[in-house]
Amino acid sequence: MKPIVECVPNFSEGRRLDAIDAIVKAMAQVPSVQILDVQSDSDHNRSVVTAVGSPQAVVEMAFQGIAAAADLIDLNHHRGEHPRMGATDVVPFVPVRGVTMQECVDLARQLGERVGRELAIPVYLYEEAATRPERRDLAYVRRGEYEGLKEEISTNPDRMPDFGPAELGTAGATAIGARPPLIAFNVYLNTDDVAPAKAIAGAVRHSSGGLRCVKALGLLVEGQAQVSMNLTDYRSTPIHRVVELIRSEAARYGLAITRCEVVGLLPARALFDAAEFYLQLQGFAQERILENRLTAED
Amino acid sequence: MKPIVECVPNFSEGRRLDAIDAIVKAMAQVPSVQILDVQSDSDHNRSVVTAVGSPQAVVEMAFQGIAAAADLIDLNHHRGEHPRMGATDVVPFVPVRGVTMQECVDLARQLGERVGRELAIPVYLYEEAATRPERRDLAYVRRGEYEGLKEEISTNPDRMPDFGPAELGTAGATAIGARPPLIAFNVYLNTDDVAPAKAIAGAVRHSSGGLRCVKALGLLVEGQAQVSMNLTDYRSTPIHRVVELIRSEAARYGLAITRCEVVGLLPARALFDAAEFYLQLQGFAQERILENRLTAED
Repeated sequence: MKPIVECVPNFSEGRRLDAIDAIVKAMAQVPSVQILDVQSDSDHNRSVVTAVGSPQAVVEMAFQGIAAAADLIDLNHHRGEHPRMGATDVVPFVPVRGVTMQECVDLARQLGERVGRELAIPVYLYEEAATRPERRDLAYVRRGEYEGLKEEISTNPDRMPDFGPAELGTAGATAIGARPPLIAFNVYLNTDDVAPAKAIAGAVRHSSGGLRCVKALGLLVEGQAQVSMNLTDYRSTPIHRVVELIRSEAARYGLAITRCEVVGLLPARALFDAAEFYLQLQGFAQERILENRLTAED
Repeated sequence: MKPIVECVPNFSEGRRLDAIDAIVKAMAQVPSVQILDVQSDSDHNRSVVTAVGSPQAVVEMAFQGIAAAADLIDLNHHRGEHPRMGATDVVPFVPVRGVTMQECVDLARQLGERVGRELAIPVYLYEEAATRPERRDLAYVRRGEYEGLKEEISTNPDRMPDFGPAELGTAGATAIGARPPLIAFNVYLNTDDVAPAKAIAGAVRHSSGGLRCVKALGLLVEGQAQVSMNLTDYRSTPIHRVVELIRSEAARYGLAITRCEVVGLLPARALFDAAEFYLQLQGFAQERILENRLTAED
């Protein structure tokens, strides 16, 4: 099986299309890399690139993207709604197939070391790659953003980077890490009242007592109540458990689920797991899936 | 996307392991072919080989298997419980990915023409490849088996082969066709009484008024009632519809489904379809599945 790693670098540029283009081109020229998606948001002034490839290819790709962004983006002139601390703000590695989380952690460290040494950009390892427990949390690493970090980095030992110098240039600092695939999943209810959606979001999300790997908000989307979620680890908190919990909470208000949607991409395994649950396939080996046999030789 | 075709030749030899080995070796030496499974049954005196590869590779593989079987198997000395008419009895082509059913029909015709011309074996096209409506049904094509066909082939115009001579040698005749993937699927009930399993099998199977693409039997397996099925076209009659119908029929006896199982292989899409149904993913595009993007370049 050819090992495949996903890499989702976030760049602090969502308005100057020529700059975004140049960064993506620098990444796309790396052999054995496939750019799946580029999403730019001008309010956030940020672009998110989704790419896949062999482990070494995605590391090289990320390095080329970080180098190009350092040339093209000056954080002193960057304004946007989304919190950020670097021209390349965040680079997560995600295991897709034939690769362990530990291998993705190693890729994060390898990239971080090179970025610190060759580009003199401070690097913070985060999530699964973090070297201190509190740095697992990206929001903690990025607190105060570029401006706050600039003041503290050389004086506050808590802000000493994992790699690179303890001082900020125009490219700022970059968080590099490893994490499971994230699934953006929305559930629609048969009501135009946002209140039950907010209550249900509160019931299912981790922060207010719900399921471990769920972040959720209640919204009104085109007049229909929606529970909007990020599922941060579908192996620990599978989609079906989230949907069935929402179904049960909705029934308490006399409501039902009208439909669900996946935003962006999700791994096949997340759907296999749901089929396995609903079809009661006890002890089902995913080698029974014809395509899983094929990829063994692809 | 590299097109992949599955081919499942059935040979009339399930006892002489050296002969089975020689046939499988003849097929395995064809480049770009992957033998996934070989199942031999000595009561049936029959072996079923499951292989995948590029369209032209599987045609060449099937030809090599048919040629080897013609050398090694003499139908005049073959006895077994399973009905058969040829050394290579049946060769179905199954579209797996990037291939249409019509392309598989074309492969069946191409193989049939070559087998008739080069090996002088009569060939009947069946299922989707059939040239007459009644020949879609394999049981009809094979009626009377080798012995009956030997008497009729030269005199009965209904038995004129699609390719090859109207006379039988020791290799008999071969049915070559195209069909959707077949899923062997069993549902277990929480009872040791076979009667409700038989009644439910009768309710869901096509032959007695049930779903179009379901063949079903009620059995007792290790003391537990089982509805044992072949789902002959999961795109028309999806797994979830079969399971939910069985669940509803079982409830009428106060029974529940304890578990389900897949025997052999099934296509990923059959599970995606089930996940889509249960998770209410309206308008879900299977391009949202990360691995489906990958195979686009594999």
